[in-house]
Amino acid sequence: MLTPSQLAALQTLIPAERIHDDAATLERYGQDWTRYTKPQAAAVVFPRSIEEVQAVVRWANAHAVAIVPSGGRTGLSGGAVAAQGEVVVSFERMNRIDQFDPLARTVRCQAGVVTAALQAFAREQGLLYPVDFAASGSSQIGGNIATNAGGIRVVRYGMTRDWIAGLTVVTGSGELLQCNLGLNKNNSGYDFRHLFIGSEGTLGLVVEATVRLCDPAPPSAVLLLAVPQLADIMAVFHAFRSRLTLQAFEFFSDQALSHVLAAEQARPPLAQRQPFYVLLECELPPSADDALVLQAFEHCLQQGWVADGVLAQSAQQAGALWRLREGISAAITPYTPYKNDISVVISRLPAFVERLQALLEHDYPDFEVLWYGHIGDGNLHINVLKPVSWALADFRRACEAVNEQVFALVAEFAGSMSAEHGVGLLKRDYLGVTRSAADRALMRGVKAVFDPNNIMNPGKLLA
Amino acid sequence: MLTPSQLAALQTLIPAERIHDDAATLERYGQDWTRYTKPQAAAVVFPRSIEEVQAVVRWANAHAVAIVPSGGRTGLSGGAVAAQGEVVVSFERMNRIDQFDPLARTVRCQAGVVTAALQAFAREQGLLYPVDFAASGSSQIGGNIATNAGGIRVVRYGMTRDWIAGLTVVTGSGELLQCNLGLNKNNSGYDFRHLFIGSEGTLGLVVEATVRLCDPAPPSAVLLLAVPQLADIMAVFHAFRSRLTLQAFEFFSDQALSHVLAAEQARPPLAQRQPFYVLLECELPPSADDALVLQAFEHCLQQGWVADGVLAQSAQQAGALWRLREGISAAITPYTPYKNDISVVISRLPAFVERLQALLEHDYPDFEVLWYGHIGDGNLHINVLKPVSWALADFRRACEAVNEQVFALVAEFAGSMSAEHGVGLLKRDYLGVTRSAADRALMRGVKAVFDPNNIMNPGKLLA
Repeated sequence: MLTPSQLAALQTLIPAERIHDDAATLERYGQDWTRYTKPQAAAVVFPRSIEEVQAVVRWANAHAVAIVPSGGRTGLSGGAVAAQGEVVVSFERMNRIDQFDPLARTVRCQAGVVTAALQAFAREQGLLYPVDFAASGSSQIGGNIATNAGGIRVVRYGMTRDWIAGLTVVTGSGELLQCNLGLNKNNSGYDFRHLFIGSEGTLGLVVEATVRLCDPAPPSAVLLLAVPQLADIMAVFHAFRSRLTLQAFEFFSDQALSHVLAAEQARPPLAQRQPFYVLLECELPPSADDALVLQAFEHCLQQGWVADGVLAQSAQQAGALWRLREGISAAITPYTPYKNDISVVISRLPAFVERLQALLEHDYPDFEVLWYGHIGDGNLHINVLKPVSWALADFRRACEAVNEQVFALVAEFAGSMSAEHGVGLLKRDYLGVTRSAADRALMRGVKAVFDPNNIMNPGKLLA
Repeated sequence: MLTPSQLAALQTLIPAERIHDDAATLERYGQDWTRYTKPQAAAVVFPRSIEEVQAVVRWANAHAVAIVPSGGRTGLSGGAVAAQGEVVVSFERMNRIDQFDPLARTVRCQAGVVTAALQAFAREQGLLYPVDFAASGSSQIGGNIATNAGGIRVVRYGMTRDWIAGLTVVTGSGELLQCNLGLNKNNSGYDFRHLFIGSEGTLGLVVEATVRLCDPAPPSAVLLLAVPQLADIMAVFHAFRSRLTLQAFEFFSDQALSHVLAAEQARPPLAQRQPFYVLLECELPPSADDALVLQAFEHCLQQGWVADGVLAQSAQQAGALWRLREGISAAITPYTPYKNDISVVISRLPAFVERLQALLEHDYPDFEVLWYGHIGDGNLHINVLKPVSWALADFRRACEAVNEQVFALVAEFAGSMSAEHGVGLLKRDYLGVTRSAADRALMRGVKAVFDPNNIMNPGKLLA
């Protein structure tokens, strides 16, 4: 809770109707999609301008109050959780899209613009904002930048990082920085834009961004393939990529499929069940015929990499296939899954998964473990489902005990302990898997430069 | 000059035959392609391993000796000049290409690999390393990364930054950092890879990189277009880009053309001379016919944006057209050109150039000023030629006097004071054009984190 004098000072900067501290608001804005931490925000502030954001940050420095930035709160690692009496700065009221530049094909967005709104705006201009993921309907561009959001099109379009031409941030000390100015080419010193992208609100607040748009995607084919052996998945990847441009290359296990089918009361997409499935989308050549797609598919069948498959014959059917992949996360939410989101270099993925599978079968005999992910990027989501009878805290402890071995394996394969979800609160203690002690010391040094009083999302990412 | 005890200590780390201090070597390795500063290196060291680089950096810290990293020394802003008794660390002996990963389509290179060697290696694998520029035959991948090299294909493929999947660096304090590990997706804290890319050797030394390769470019058409009005150039850009994928969109003035024609004793490429030319290369659709190219060209002719043009009918003719653009730099080298390398957002380019042209005509009545550049990226190279009768120092001073107004205009248009050449020594005092005082203070803070004793290329980029 803020002291009366802290609150009075804040009210001189932000009108009282945009400072909330009722229980419902504190609860709602004090957490993200993770459910492992009890929210304990002191207040929620809704600035409407960059100047107001700067004023709040300066106030926070003067009063030694910590800030948690808040976008769509769809994060999966507790990066936007306020559990220590922080003030939440919500960007909901800063959601203007302006300054579309058709020649440069960029658009300026305030941090609170919802991803889906940006995607819709791009479509209206005959263009595409290609970063897309399950939370697009709620997530905000500022949060996407802070977490370098990835998703289902990374194999084709890269991460959020690749689409930010300019970034306006308020540093932890309240300075306003213009990073890269929307330029295509700019070699004038350290690129702080990329330092802020993925920094999870620990260096400062993203207040505005100049986002690149691109040509709409060409017509594509969507296939679901049944893969008996996980070891063959990268061969399937290669068979398609060597013939066609991949738009997506997703993967899930039969167990994951079962959950989606149950949740959506849908029928199995293929007559035959197999342990693994690949959902792939590839661009069709301008002639728009399926010849190369069928050629790649036939090749995979002949080699025995694929046992069965279906090529969507309509947009509706393509949508239905996509739902099998995109529905997994929602289908398993009731099981409070413990999520690990890891990546390795794709050529090492089969060997890595084989070792990981053996490890999990050995160490989680009692838990159901689901596999899915953006396997064309080397990114695997491992979800451990909580048995109904287990208490959440016990379950988390049990999962964390197994993490030691999982992450030792990630380290052995020189992988990342967080491919796209970020580190936040939930994975903070595993940062050392991917970043050495010297590296983490440098991270702390850099944080101190931008946030000398450690008021920006303290305790997230770095201990 | 090193003291006997400094040298003795160094010789315990690096064999004496790889520590040079003869005048010719000091002269050769003490400078880059700029010719404004007298080289004054103390010694040149040729490490052969990462361990040796680390040893040299630790030695430099212990003995308070400054280091200048040295790649192909093709820089144009004095970033690799040793003018204050520094020890030059050359990466010539660290030029191994290894660990090609065909599935991930990456290759690991030591810092000293020459760009052209990497390009050739990629071709041998049926792939492409698409970053290309005039100095590719000498420049090294480590230097490319330190300066975020751009060049002629940025409009299609981006800068060096976009092709680095992993980076191994030795920081200013001698720590070895592995940045991003060659991963596609990795959200595990601050992305120091991007901080080092473009940092001009001021934070540490790039020793190894994992570079991405891509599919070879499809067949393309090369055109030279004569453009009477500079103001119409972006309309030409739009006419082609809306129909075709651009591989390059380059620009030069008729005066620049005259110099190339004289230097190469070539004939004018078009019957009619016009004040400006565009050299463009665009991908042909799979049918490989020119219909869309001709459609775009006809449209530009009809609109009066283009007065004349030629479409290369053979690879040889395409090469000849390209030489008109690529030959400019060499053709004007005898005039010791004073170079400015600036960029603005492309939609603002015509208005910017109009203002700049008026300014230069007014302020440089006695000097010949040439324009050329990668205009599809908003990047303009302005070259002021030294009259034979002027002394170099006087000429530089005269140019710097005009810089004040040029850069004030760049600032007014929110552009970059260095689009691709970097800041180095030559442009250091103009960094404030693009980076605010607060921003520069943060840069100094970050440098102190990575290089606490300020031994890494001191005086470059930051004063």
